[in-house]
Amino acid sequence: FCYQTTRINGRENSSYCEASGELDELAQSNLGYIEGCQTDIDLLNQKANDEILQVEQKYIKLRQPVYTRRSRYIERVPHFWATVFSRHPQLKRVLTKEDIQCLKYLTNIQICDFEDSRSGYHMIFHFAGNPWFDNSTITKEYHLPWHDAPSCECSDIKWKQGMNLTKKSSSFFSWFCSQEDASTDDIAEIIKEELWPNPLQSFLLKENEESDGDGEFEDESKLDEELLLDDVIDEADDVIDEADDVIDEADDVIDEPDDV
Amino acid sequence: FCYQTTRINGRENSSYCEASGELDELAQSNLGYIEGCQTDIDLLNQKANDEILQVEQKYIKLRQPVYTRRSRYIERVPHFWATVFSRHPQLKRVLTKEDIQCLKYLTNIQICDFEDSRSGYHMIFHFAGNPWFDNSTITKEYHLPWHDAPSCECSDIKWKQGMNLTKKSSSFFSWFCSQEDASTDDIAEIIKEELWPNPLQSFLLKENEESDGDGEFEDESKLDEELLLDDVIDEADDVIDEADDVIDEADDVIDEPDDV
Repeated sequence: FCYQTTRINGRENSSYCEASGELDELAQSNLGYIEGCQTDIDLLNQKANDEILQVEQKYIKLRQPVYTRRSRYIERVPHFWATVFSRHPQLKRVLTKEDIQCLKYLTNIQICDFEDSRSGYHMIFHFAGNPWFDNSTITKEYHLPWHDAPSCECSDIKWKQGMNLTKKSSSFFSWFCSQEDASTDDIAEIIKEELWPNPLQSFLLKENEESDGDGEFEDESKLDEELLLDDVIDEADDVIDEADDVIDEADDVIDEPDDV
Repeated sequence: FCYQTTRINGRENSSYCEASGELDELAQSNLGYIEGCQTDIDLLNQKANDEILQVEQKYIKLRQPVYTRRSRYIERVPHFWATVFSRHPQLKRVLTKEDIQCLKYLTNIQICDFEDSRSGYHMIFHFAGNPWFDNSTITKEYHLPWHDAPSCECSDIKWKQGMNLTKKSSSFFSWFCSQEDASTDDIAEIIKEELWPNPLQSFLLKENEESDGDGEFEDESKLDEELLLDDVIDEADDVIDEADDVIDEADDVIDEPDDV
């Protein structure tokens, strides 16, 4: 959440004169006043952003000890996170049975925002000794720079011989090891925004139970649609091009010449 | 922007016992403690939401006089909003030349949040006397209830005889009169989130100029993709079904029986 601010003031002052060469002097001076208003709005947006960030950071600190306490209880419930993951309406679709067996060794998750909470976060997954890999922790770190594309770094998984789950045709662990697609990472979003703030919601679903429509899991087809969106974007682009052609033709037929 | 809170406490207390009948007494009591933590987290989320809402409402009030002042200057620049609309990289694609002619009579826009700023907003479009319709204002009101689908109400346009733009094959005014699709209303979003907070950004673009990549207009294909998404969802659903079948088959081949 963030209020937009403009960079018009960083441009050359004459920019609006160029863009609107046909305007008379009165209109020009009014454009100048509008730009003055924009400066005031930008300043207010900046202050609002700062104050909201302060509130967010205050509550990140207040939640931390509760999450730490919760982790202690979670560790005492066998297969807690495996159950949570395997009952989530969207996540369960990307989990194989072997993934779930492996996730039974996931004893603890920590998700921490960076000091500047809007610039990124890291996830630490703690594993007990298991037949698949030697890591005791696997980390993923998401960097969300203000004016650049998001990126992601993660631990190498030290697979035991012949146990590499990502060599199978599909596995949740392919996401676990992937540093790609940080900008459309639906799995990270589900873990960070749904499971971490409220894992019981998913834990309490019975096997094969879907959402009761309370909102959080309502749009169950969303993940699938997004995962498949790339496949259909190309097709959509073709349709767009066709539609543009039709609109151009329609404009020519319908409208008179015009000077805007 | 809103922190999620759970309704677990509203359910029957025995819900987690049912869901996890196989867990021993120690695990059960730990689930109870986790539920206690969730209550604390929910309470903190609620407080954070309240404080953020207060900040937002404070700044809505502080911006209001600036917007009022800006409107006075905007009214003195001929065809200000028609120029803004017709230069916006996405909006200009849905504007016919006759739409733009008509929008030259749009003298003023007001966008106001409801008293409870998260429950909705209204847009008021002020028009000078024009050859197309008799309204001096056209309003659209968006209701965004917390636990229900968004909806939209708008003014009837009193078209002059033979001038109804929505009878043409395509027109921006079809959106103007439509009360449908309030949940995926990209045009309302562009007007409310981009043009209203910063109309100069679009006004200053030269005709046929695209964004300079500063961020706001970066994803120019987004609108088109979303407008066309319905057309391709059906296809995606078919692919999902196929993928599910393949995954099931793969699971059968790869995995051993298992008891999660």
